[in-house]
Amino acid sequence: MANDRSFEEAREGKANRRSEILNAAGQLFSRQGFHATSMRDLAKAVNLQGGSLYAHIQSKEEVLFELVNRAADEFLSSAEAVPSDLSPREQLERLVRGHLEVIVRELDNATVFFHEWKFLNPDLQRKITARRDAYEAHFRRVIEAGVQQGQFQVEDVRLATLFVLSALNWTYHWYRPGGKLTLEALSSHYCKLIFRTLGAQ
Amino acid sequence: MANDRSFEEAREGKANRRSEILNAAGQLFSRQGFHATSMRDLAKAVNLQGGSLYAHIQSKEEVLFELVNRAADEFLSSAEAVPSDLSPREQLERLVRGHLEVIVRELDNATVFFHEWKFLNPDLQRKITARRDAYEAHFRRVIEAGVQQGQFQVEDVRLATLFVLSALNWTYHWYRPGGKLTLEALSSHYCKLIFRTLGAQ
Repeated sequence: MANDRSFEEAREGKANRRSEILNAAGQLFSRQGFHATSMRDLAKAVNLQGGSLYAHIQSKEEVLFELVNRAADEFLSSAEAVPSDLSPREQLERLVRGHLEVIVRELDNATVFFHEWKFLNPDLQRKITARRDAYEAHFRRVIEAGVQQGQFQVEDVRLATLFVLSALNWTYHWYRPGGKLTLEALSSHYCKLIFRTLGAQ
Repeated sequence: MANDRSFEEAREGKANRRSEILNAAGQLFSRQGFHATSMRDLAKAVNLQGGSLYAHIQSKEEVLFELVNRAADEFLSSAEAVPSDLSPREQLERLVRGHLEVIVRELDNATVFFHEWKFLNPDLQRKITARRDAYEAHFRRVIEAGVQQGQFQVEDVRLATLFVLSALNWTYHWYRPGGKLTLEALSSHYCKLIFRTLGAQ
């Protein structure tokens, strides 16, 4: 029993350490960029010797992929949680609020997701592109459904979707949590602007 | 006379070389990032020995500042060229078209401007921030004027300006000149969406 417990504790300690390393990497990659962050910087941020880092992670690129992929998980689960029996307008409102919430909650990872993913190797980039496309499709399908049901008036659904997602994505450049503008105020405001953009009735 | 001419030619040759180096740097920084580009990469791209590069440029950071600052020049001159005696709606249309045109024409420099400027030192960042603010103010003032004259209906001019500029800025992530979507089609479409966003009458 005692042995089992220490084994469990060691495993948990290792998982915690890995998660601490990933958080530190998210901060460093988002602030100074993937290429400007060395393994030494990363080790220092979590108080490890450079060599000991390799007990927890294989490479900087592995960490980058995990961060980008986690952000993709967050965006996708937020979109998948929107009930499909709501009206397109209600679904879109949930999608928009979810998108902004993920960006604000995961500001570092979202920055890495949007900014640093291009430094992944082509195979890993393709995996992420597929997930981004799947995410974009949630928005496009809801806008398309809204047009078909006469709730939205849009000439070109693909361009309108790009326009809306562009306006939302850029938020990580300027929004800082804890400032005067709350997430709720930002989301309500952006929803109104987006409904107007889409000619919502 | 002969001497004057060779002096002129040498000076011109040097200016051409510098401009060639800046173009190559724009491509490299936008595709692989500022930090992942070495002076050696840059020398190789313009067929110079590493050391000879220093006859033309002082440092990678000097080149980064020049690229970012040139992009700022392009955005600002485009905005300053909009006649202030047009209606706010017409002015906004010119601002939007000008913004997209600069992004599309200067895709590499615009990418460096939006992506890599954070790698400038704090002093140089402040210079660029001041120019970005001045540029944003062109949009804000025109939207504000449109609201005052009853051409636009906007609750929060600052947020609406951010929304519009965000949607425009993101274009450099996905737009590729020479594809099916022409700059003219993109601009007309985006103008329509923006007018709707702003509740234009």
